[in-house]
Amino acid sequence: MSATPKKKLMLFAGRAHPELATEVAEQLGVSITPQSARDFANGEIFVRFEESVRGCDAFVLQSHTAPINTWIMEQLIMVDALKRASAKRITVIMPFYPYARQDKKHMGREPISARLIADMFKTAGADRIMTVDLHTAQIQGFFDGPVDHLLAHNQLCEHVSRKYGTDNVTVVSPDSGRVRVAEKWADTLGGAPIAFVHKTRDPRVPNQVKSNRVVGDVAGRTCILIDDMIDTGGTIAGAVQVLRDAGATDVVIAATHGVLSDPAPQRLAESGAREVVLTNTLPIPQEKRFPTLTVLSIAPLLAQAIRAVFEDDSVTSLFNGSA
Amino acid sequence: MSATPKKKLMLFAGRAHPELATEVAEQLGVSITPQSARDFANGEIFVRFEESVRGCDAFVLQSHTAPINTWIMEQLIMVDALKRASAKRITVIMPFYPYARQDKKHMGREPISARLIADMFKTAGADRIMTVDLHTAQIQGFFDGPVDHLLAHNQLCEHVSRKYGTDNVTVVSPDSGRVRVAEKWADTLGGAPIAFVHKTRDPRVPNQVKSNRVVGDVAGRTCILIDDMIDTGGTIAGAVQVLRDAGATDVVIAATHGVLSDPAPQRLAESGAREVVLTNTLPIPQEKRFPTLTVLSIAPLLAQAIRAVFEDDSVTSLFNGSA
Amino acid sequence: MSATPKKKLMLFAGRAHPELATEVAEQLGVSITPQSARDFANGEIFVRFEESVRGCDAFVLQSHTAPINTWIMEQLIMVDALKRASAKRITVIMPFYPYARQDKKHMGREPISARLIADMFKTAGADRIMTVDLHTAQIQGFFDGPVDHLLAHNQLCEHVSRKYGTDNVTVVSPDSGRVRVAEKWADTLGGAPIAFVHKTRDPRVPNQVKSNRVVGDVAGRTCILIDDMIDTGGTIAGAVQVLRDAGATDVVIAATHGVLSDPAPQRLAESGAREVVLTNTLPIPQEKRFPTLTVLSIAPLLAQAIRAVFEDDSVTSLFNGSA
Amino acid sequence: MSATPKKKLMLFAGRAHPELATEVAEQLGVSITPQSARDFANGEIFVRFEESVRGCDAFVLQSHTAPINTWIMEQLIMVDALKRASAKRITVIMPFYPYARQDKKHMGREPISARLIADMFKTAGADRIMTVDLHTAQIQGFFDGPVDHLLAHNQLCEHVSRKYGTDNVTVVSPDSGRVRVAEKWADTLGGAPIAFVHKTRDPRVPNQVKSNRVVGDVAGRTCILIDDMIDTGGTIAGAVQVLRDAGATDVVIAATHGVLSDPAPQRLAESGAREVVLTNTLPIPQEKRFPTLTVLSIAPLLAQAIRAVFEDDSVTSLFNGSA
Amino acid sequence: MSATPKKKLMLFAGRAHPELATEVAEQLGVSITPQSARDFANGEIFVRFEESVRGCDAFVLQSHTAPINTWIMEQLIMVDALKRASAKRITVIMPFYPYARQDKKHMGREPISARLIADMFKTAGADRIMTVDLHTAQIQGFFDGPVDHLLAHNQLCEHVSRKYGTDNVTVVSPDSGRVRVAEKWADTLGGAPIAFVHKTRDPRVPNQVKSNRVVGDVAGRTCILIDDMIDTGGTIAGAVQVLRDAGATDVVIAATHGVLSDPAPQRLAESGAREVVLTNTLPIPQEKRFPTLTVLSIAPLLAQAIRAVFEDDSVTSLFNGSA
Amino acid sequence: MSATPKKKLMLFAGRAHPELATEVAEQLGVSITPQSARDFANGEIFVRFEESVRGCDAFVLQSHTAPINTWIMEQLIMVDALKRASAKRITVIMPFYPYARQDKKHMGREPISARLIADMFKTAGADRIMTVDLHTAQIQGFFDGPVDHLLAHNQLCEHVSRKYGTDNVTVVSPDSGRVRVAEKWADTLGGAPIAFVHKTRDPRVPNQVKSNRVVGDVAGRTCILIDDMIDTGGTIAGAVQVLRDAGATDVVIAATHGVLSDPAPQRLAESGAREVVLTNTLPIPQEKRFPTLTVLSIAPLLAQAIRAVFEDDSVTSLFNGSA
Repeated sequence: MSATPKKKLMLFAGRAHPELATEVAEQLGVSITPQSARDFANGEIFVRFEESVRGCDAFVLQSHTAPINTWIMEQLIMVDALKRASAKRITVIMPFYPYARQDKKHMGREPISARLIADMFKTAGADRIMTVDLHTAQIQGFFDGPVDHLLAHNQLCEHVSRKYGTDNVTVVSPDSGRVRVAEKWADTLGGAPIAFVHKTRDPRVPNQVKSNRVVGDVAGRTCILIDDMIDTGGTIAGAVQVLRDAGATDVVIAATHGVLSDPAPQRLAESGAREVVLTNTLPIPQEKRFPTLTVLSIAPLLAQAIRAVFEDDSVTSLFNGSA
Repeated sequence: MSATPKKKLMLFAGRAHPELATEVAEQLGVSITPQSARDFANGEIFVRFEESVRGCDAFVLQSHTAPINTWIMEQLIMVDALKRASAKRITVIMPFYPYARQDKKHMGREPISARLIADMFKTAGADRIMTVDLHTAQIQGFFDGPVDHLLAHNQLCEHVSRKYGTDNVTVVSPDSGRVRVAEKWADTLGGAPIAFVHKTRDPRVPNQVKSNRVVGDVAGRTCILIDDMIDTGGTIAGAVQVLRDAGATDVVIAATHGVLSDPAPQRLAESGAREVVLTNTLPIPQEKRFPTLTVLSIAPLLAQAIRAVFEDDSVTSLFNGSA
Repeated sequence: MSATPKKKLMLFAGRAHPELATEVAEQLGVSITPQSARDFANGEIFVRFEESVRGCDAFVLQSHTAPINTWIMEQLIMVDALKRASAKRITVIMPFYPYARQDKKHMGREPISARLIADMFKTAGADRIMTVDLHTAQIQGFFDGPVDHLLAHNQLCEHVSRKYGTDNVTVVSPDSGRVRVAEKWADTLGGAPIAFVHKTRDPRVPNQVKSNRVVGDVAGRTCILIDDMIDTGGTIAGAVQVLRDAGATDVVIAATHGVLSDPAPQRLAESGAREVVLTNTLPIPQEKRFPTLTVLSIAPLLAQAIRAVFEDDSVTSLFNGSA
Repeated sequence: MSATPKKKLMLFAGRAHPELATEVAEQLGVSITPQSARDFANGEIFVRFEESVRGCDAFVLQSHTAPINTWIMEQLIMVDALKRASAKRITVIMPFYPYARQDKKHMGREPISARLIADMFKTAGADRIMTVDLHTAQIQGFFDGPVDHLLAHNQLCEHVSRKYGTDNVTVVSPDSGRVRVAEKWADTLGGAPIAFVHKTRDPRVPNQVKSNRVVGDVAGRTCILIDDMIDTGGTIAGAVQVLRDAGATDVVIAATHGVLSDPAPQRLAESGAREVVLTNTLPIPQEKRFPTLTVLSIAPLLAQAIRAVFEDDSVTSLFNGSA
Repeated sequence: MSATPKKKLMLFAGRAHPELATEVAEQLGVSITPQSARDFANGEIFVRFEESVRGCDAFVLQSHTAPINTWIMEQLIMVDALKRASAKRITVIMPFYPYARQDKKHMGREPISARLIADMFKTAGADRIMTVDLHTAQIQGFFDGPVDHLLAHNQLCEHVSRKYGTDNVTVVSPDSGRVRVAEKWADTLGGAPIAFVHKTRDPRVPNQVKSNRVVGDVAGRTCILIDDMIDTGGTIAGAVQVLRDAGATDVVIAATHGVLSDPAPQRLAESGAREVVLTNTLPIPQEKRFPTLTVLSIAPLLAQAIRAVFEDDSVTSLFNGSA
Repeated sequence: MSATPKKKLMLFAGRAHPELATEVAEQLGVSITPQSARDFANGEIFVRFEESVRGCDAFVLQSHTAPINTWIMEQLIMVDALKRASAKRITVIMPFYPYARQDKKHMGREPISARLIADMFKTAGADRIMTVDLHTAQIQGFFDGPVDHLLAHNQLCEHVSRKYGTDNVTVVSPDSGRVRVAEKWADTLGGAPIAFVHKTRDPRVPNQVKSNRVVGDVAGRTCILIDDMIDTGGTIAGAVQVLRDAGATDVVIAATHGVLSDPAPQRLAESGAREVVLTNTLPIPQEKRFPTLTVLSIAPLLAQAIRAVFEDDSVTSLFNGSA
């Protein structure tokens, strides 16, 4: 008995960020597969898909916001259900990779939770991962399979350069660990100068920061202060202050992931930054928004990448070769 | 270079149920290994052990109460940290096995989350699992390695028979799925009769229960209504009512796991049951306690089993061969 | 070099139950792939396929009757040969799941052979399993991949209700472990009452059954005595006797798997049951048949499910959502 | 809590060859661990160990005679039970490696069952394998772990040279595939000449042997006809005839594994061979014995190797470096 | 969103043997996928593909000549890159299987590197292996997946029989380990006689060869001296001498793999062999060629097999059922 | 049969860097286990251990210098041989982690070879890895097991501060990616200022560096130019020039790994740096040494860590908690 196989894209969405899922579905021109997802009284999650998923090319989108462990587990359970229901291929989409900051042992006897996350999704049945702007690119290597690493860099750069030009800007890393990223921004912005904030520690008092100082020239410049994520906003708001003290004319903050745990919204709003640019890889509800905040949508990029994966087109080419 | 190896028991405890951990530690005569465990602002958990764990025989105790996904993840992260820090053997202790009710596909396109849990702990680095009164014993087979399945049965039976004798008791299963367990109780209680509550459904209205009726004789008897866990308490409170309607003199509820999600405490307190007997596999905080509630401690049993595992003694013999 | 892929269903059959294989092949409209299968003098099995299987969607049917270990090994060897010969996907069909009764440790130091079976087929190269009426549904979770769990329930119920109506029937479980299944039958039969046979044990004599008694009302009723399998028939024949002693008008036995080890045929024939209804998941040779035996064919159900799997159609929908 | 670990050797025996197990136990000075092993009516095997095996160094001996698939499954189930009962290390002893002749694909679409056997024991939980005189040494590489490959060669050579000297002997391989082994015998016997039986095939008739002829000089010599196993004895009895036709004075047959499927005993007894020397890696019951048969016991070698493995002594040194 | 899948064959080539890759590509009518492959100053290899490989059916050809470890690593790295770039299926083509001679432990404490090679390619992401004339056929069983084992036998036999007829030829194995292969040649050449060179060892001097002598009749015959590979040529050149001393008229050497390490070319050229026939599974550069050398191309066979694999046609049928 | 286990440390050394192995052995007070290691004519490596390794705690040291792929393969083969020879635990020591620079995909369709290395050693049988100063700490997460990440930082800092004090020094990163490391140096050196060399690129000419400029103040300072490895020395020599142009008084280069591919020795010698401080994680033969080069030995640190691992002591404590 012979037949010509067909392939069918199906989109699945966890409950963490329905707006993003809806937007991605619209961009793709598909519906989100209907499912029953509910919480047992003790917090256990139950998921059941309401349509046959047999043989489909499944894309499972979840946004890893708080309560983050709940959303991780929900996505794992969705993958397990898809595997057992005979989905042909399962791509896990995590626009914000959870636990990405635990990507190494800083000291002895620590976990490497970012690797654990990769292994758990592999165990559950994930064939591939799609993610945006990893905290460190090495996390790609934590997964034993293809990782489509999308970059919001172009979107952010374009927004910034359109609004602030490239003549008088300096790209600033808020600490010593992101100087490489600042350099990449500087290249995209036409060779802008860069700077970073250096924390000095008092050698007599362990683990205590003595002072922050700017390394590089920022006086009279529009500083583009970049980061991959903003969590409580303490470091970044401190950096704005240091930059202004050092004579910066304006500070614009640009980051991909708006974790925005309290009291980040207030801190950012009051930091003195002229604009804060984020994407919606994580939900940013109305009550966390403030006047100087701009949120760019990551949905078009996700939809483009999903379509490319489904149709075996190049994802790399979406980023001029980077990946 | 030669040496005689030593082995060292170390006890680790998640943050879900410190009272139980403390009690187990006291029974064992060891300290809980000090650790830093904290939550990032977005809910990500971080753990670091403050003493060397190299080469130890690690027992990692967590109690899977709400928020259950958080405590699962914490325990997984602890296991990962122990594996990477060179613990010699890692035993995961989950007195209440999480997601045990999702042990099969009831309908198509459902997950089997209880298997997923087993696989995730294996992936993280668990060598063995210790658990108490599984929802179904088949879950032992979900883990690829040794599972020490402890039974609170003896403890519960002894309490009940001491207080209520065995002459006039009937053991009752609250539904058709636990009749086997009721039979086991009946044997331990000297050949008591058994009964169960049968839900009939209207064939014209899918999934709707038409009525509950008792199958078996309960009139004039002290009914021991048994279950493995009590979550919201709806089924069990309903069963009390049905039994009393059927002429039961008294109803005593006995179950191992007190999930006690709202409104279980109120329902149980008002159910008309003479006593509700539970163990502390899950924390039962003061505000959930009510006058007719008795909580037996599972800590001595856990401590005995941990010691037996550490010393390569039989665990089976703790239960007269059952396991 | 590009091409449009084709997919090709190929059916393979072990030597245990050629009649079933032939019937499934006819229902599907395909031929059983010719193979050389023979036994070495010392019992080692050799298999070779006589047509190219490269790229095919392979369905490997075996019936696990005695000598059961031989047929397990033959099927494993067939899967190994298919894997090495580049079959694209391998579905193992085991209408009667072997070793299903060893699905947990009843006591310490026992195997969980049903899990071992799942792991061995995975190791050999099986991608999926298709089976009928598992001894316990949890066995689905023993396999790390999709399990299509087919149900003979509807076929059996329809036969019974057509012949005996639903008005005067009581569904009876032969022991305390199958009451849940009896309840499901009762629902399908329009809300029939249920009962079960309760074994009481003498507490002074370990492991010895003192007496069987019926729990539930059966006097004057047509009892449908249900089970998943009938092996030596001792329990079930005993239950017929108990039911008749309790006043049942008629007893009809219905089970999916007719293992029928000696002396089951004689016991069933002489049990006093009006009819014994089985399916042919296992071969029931002429010499085991007796006048009151009815054998329903499982072949149409297997063929339907195979076609659905091949064509990526829903299998769940064959059972109104159950699976 | 600290302790000094102990290690404990425990011997387990399948039911295929109790005499060998008993002899090995006596040589080691240990008891065979008591177990319940029985067959369900449909052939399913059940095993339960009657003593705690927790933490032991388990050696699981089975002899793979007919019904070979039954004994394979029994040993797999024993390994599964040991793994789940927390044995510390599991060594599978298979004096005759089952399915060793299926060690490659001779033609397309065949299994490699010898690899499948290795993988299944790994999956069940075996840490190591101990075996004697593999059909081909490459099978060692089929197992992902240590294989102790014991050699009966020295025992057999010593017996032969003591009885027949080395002056007038020629070592003969019964076919072209064992000439290398004959050469090894020749070296051990002081540089004896070698010969082999060459099957010529008629190119016009596929797969039909035209004639056997001896390559090498055997006239007037005592021929030591060697092989790894004797199954039905057809090839080896034919070789005796060819050698005698070619003028051999005497023929002595020496092989490690006496499979002795019918009609091997008769064929060997009537072959004209002066002596047939075998070991008891497989049981040779009284009814298969004949006057010219000598059976050497492999038990001392197995016991020596088990002790060496337990005590971390060299096994290689038992064979002067070979392994 | 639905679509009809396409499949696309892509050929990838390591840098070891560009001539062979080019020839295979021409035979297939495809281009070799362009890639950047370069060596870091410390020998680390870097590879990047310059076209999208997403969803392709990848065939990765490498020839394992010296420096063999470099070419192994390059091919592993190519496989890793393909896996991470979402190739659909990866077939590793190793015409000469590296480390094939380490296919067993000859003595204790040796590696089985041929198994290690198989496992490493599996780990890197290989789905299948294609190879030619394995040193021992058992190596097929080292890989957990399909191995297409191609045979140059027919090509070599045809060349030899066309040039030398079959009437007066004797097939000779250069040692006792390849007599089986000689027998296969003899069958193909119409039932030719066979012989082999037997090394006798002095029992008083361990590991020292006392003399080589021919077993079988070679006087006045054209000897076809066969082997799977020729490395330094010492054994084979010695065999030519022994055969000529024993009266052979002519000696023709035929082998699949021309490793030809120094001083093989000189030894073979001066050995007195009338012709040396090899294939180009390994590169044979101009400076290693000598007048009596004939090199047959393996490229047509590889291309045929690649096409068959891509199109799901039988590979076995290329060899009349062998494989 | 009972016994008290012993554990035995055995040290194994690849052939890449015998001086380091000898030094480590001396520090530990053990001998390097004698082995036969040789190269076949075609580059295949053969290894055999000359003493029993059964049950030992094996530490396998290799230094990954050019020809790096050869030394990787040698170490893999050693691990395979140890696994098959029943070593109890295998720790792979790679002072310089090979392929560490390929720790992520910089562009699409690239390998992540550092992950591949980790997986290959796991596959071969490695239980643990010990390494020094990883290129990025995330590589720890590539291995599924314990990684002891040793730091040469303290040794290098102590040397530098003893010779140059801490008053007038500035720590300089040669590019934007190592600023974090520079900050760590600065902290250890009592809060020294830091700087880095910023490469600007011409946006109109892709991938071309327009100019290097120093960010941070270096005029009149002794610059400590730090890196993890020096390969061809181009970047670092260029950085010396830039620093001197920017007014640095002196430049001291400090790095852990001296890859020193040509023309690094000449470049460094002529760079104008006052001193170049390296360790001997890689061999630095006499012909690569130059007057301003200082080589610190890593052997004491390796020996300390090996002893701690063997004795289950903390490795973390060797680094004040870092790891």
